[in-house]
Amino acid sequence: MAAVSSAKPTPILKDELDIVIPTIRNLDFLEMWRPFFQPYHLIIVQDGDPSKIINVPEGFDYELYNRNDINRILGPKASCISFKDSACRCFGYMVSKKKYIFTIDDDCFVAKDPSGKEINALEQHIKNLLSPSTPTFFNTLYDPYREGADFVRGYPFSLREGVITAVSHGLWLNIPDYDAPTQLVKPRERNTRYVDAVLTIPKSTLFPMCGMNLAFDRELIGPAMYFGLMGDGQPIGRYDDMWAGWCMKVICDHLGYGVKTGLPYIWHSKASNPFVNLKKEYLGIFWQEETIPFFQNVALPKDCTTVQKCYIELSKQVKEKLAKVDPYFDKLADAMVTWIEAWDELNPPQAEGSSAKVTK
Amino acid sequence: MAAVSSAKPTPILKDELDIVIPTIRNLDFLEMWRPFFQPYHLIIVQDGDPSKIINVPEGFDYELYNRNDINRILGPKASCISFKDSACRCFGYMVSKKKYIFTIDDDCFVAKDPSGKEINALEQHIKNLLSPSTPTFFNTLYDPYREGADFVRGYPFSLREGVITAVSHGLWLNIPDYDAPTQLVKPRERNTRYVDAVLTIPKSTLFPMCGMNLAFDRELIGPAMYFGLMGDGQPIGRYDDMWAGWCMKVICDHLGYGVKTGLPYIWHSKASNPFVNLKKEYLGIFWQEETIPFFQNVALPKDCTTVQKCYIELSKQVKEKLAKVDPYFDKLADAMVTWIEAWDELNPPQAEGSSAKVTK
Repeated sequence: MAAVSSAKPTPILKDELDIVIPTIRNLDFLEMWRPFFQPYHLIIVQDGDPSKIINVPEGFDYELYNRNDINRILGPKASCISFKDSACRCFGYMVSKKKYIFTIDDDCFVAKDPSGKEINALEQHIKNLLSPSTPTFFNTLYDPYREGADFVRGYPFSLREGVITAVSHGLWLNIPDYDAPTQLVKPRERNTRYVDAVLTIPKSTLFPMCGMNLAFDRELIGPAMYFGLMGDGQPIGRYDDMWAGWCMKVICDHLGYGVKTGLPYIWHSKASNPFVNLKKEYLGIFWQEETIPFFQNVALPKDCTTVQKCYIELSKQVKEKLAKVDPYFDKLADAMVTWIEAWDELNPPQAEGSSAKVTK
Repeated sequence: MAAVSSAKPTPILKDELDIVIPTIRNLDFLEMWRPFFQPYHLIIVQDGDPSKIINVPEGFDYELYNRNDINRILGPKASCISFKDSACRCFGYMVSKKKYIFTIDDDCFVAKDPSGKEINALEQHIKNLLSPSTPTFFNTLYDPYREGADFVRGYPFSLREGVITAVSHGLWLNIPDYDAPTQLVKPRERNTRYVDAVLTIPKSTLFPMCGMNLAFDRELIGPAMYFGLMGDGQPIGRYDDMWAGWCMKVICDHLGYGVKTGLPYIWHSKASNPFVNLKKEYLGIFWQEETIPFFQNVALPKDCTTVQKCYIELSKQVKEKLAKVDPYFDKLADAMVTWIEAWDELNPPQAEGSSAKVTK
């Protein structure tokens, strides 16, 4: 191309990816991310008091939604978006018009690799999303599509094309993502182990998806990324990303999409208060003993050929099988339906009928 | 204990682990492993010409079996032990009287970790085997039982005890374990990525198990570690460890045992000849397209409560479903039965009837 030699290289997928940040405070943390994030568009979901002014460092291209905006845009359907909980971030997924989403918490800083180099987390997520996944057979040298790696002896050749990747789950150095009981028992534990790997989470295997450092293909799997009902007025918190992860994984397994975990790392700067967390979590700690077997045994019928159809079917099964655990799940199942209705309203399916491609 | 302060620490499991080495040459490679292996007992399985004298460096405690010994000990049942193929190593598993086996190839040297420290591969395998596995739910910070790690938020508490670990699969720096086509296409590829992780291979997920650097609990899973019919007189080679890995994994899944992969690394010194390998492998490359779906769909009945019962049942299903792929599988199914008969002859089940505990 006739590019001027001094031109900076175009950041990958600059026009196809939004960065979604839920927050209640000034976004000073963006200063550290400036070299990596500035070329991208940000969607900021302001939680809590909508009259508070959130300061965004200069030079970033962003749109910001507070609770008043959410209520105005969604009307009565705004009830499906959590308040006073970072679960509100999923509103950003819904209003985005891009193919990819990267979401990050505002207490996550740039980590360094063992050589001391700053890690471009977004670039690694994009690499993960743009290379295939291998959910049906495990490769012992991890992601076979990385440079310097490949499929090992005994890996069936028919599976080496892999499948399309829908989700890239990144990890955290420093403060690990522990539950309140583990935080209480191990107050000083820090994650210092840099594991230089990306791997596909095998089909039919569930995992605890953390929303701190997460990217996904919104066109492929967006409607499954609902972060549930948490926070204000709800009996539970801190299970928003878990819920999304379980729903998303069974739908990816059903539709044949891949989910990767591992690199990139971010630097998680501070531990949240374990006492506050315990209050938010304790019901979830009981409930997950029921919800995880539920998701492990979910079967989606063959005619669920779109994420929306899968998700509505899942909401029915939640109502049928989990409402007896607690009435909360009945309410959650209804909110799942509302979420899909709101999604489709903001992202009307194209005339061709492919619900995977939203109108831009 | 009243130990003298200058006494060396006792190597872990010194009296409970045998090191099994298949070879056709002098075992000079042991010099490098001396600090790590010398306290342990070695079982050397000499392949090829039994009249050849194999030199073992001084100071090692070993027993050596050549083809004449195998024929003498097993009589007609010796037919199940491969000749002119490293698959013969499984004879060593059978004659061992120890609880644990570590098997290593004689072209595998001591690797170094990123800090330059020599890796005690055996010690890491023992750590892997002595800590539980987590096959039913994936932990994103890898092995939760390692120092500095734990279960992350959202990991069900009821699953945190884990299950007993049966197998520890180690990896290789330098020459990766590639099949002949990949060797031919990437002759210069070397594995230089040290991934500091151990992880459980999830339930119902198959993987390509390599026999180069492998440890297992012989009492738990030994009879499933049959390396099949390979080499002399057989149409196939280099699928011995793969076969054992598939059989072992479905049996571990059925019996609720764990399989780990990752650390430790060894230094794989030289690539085998890809042209020779292609000749050995090419039928396997076709057949694995049928055998892997077979193993992915195997169901073992509830009354298969011991490894032996599982393995005999598996042999029946191999005969029934794979013999139509090639008559070789008919012969292999018979050899699987012979293997179990020979195993039980050398390891008579105890009076209590627990076949998991062999007589010492």
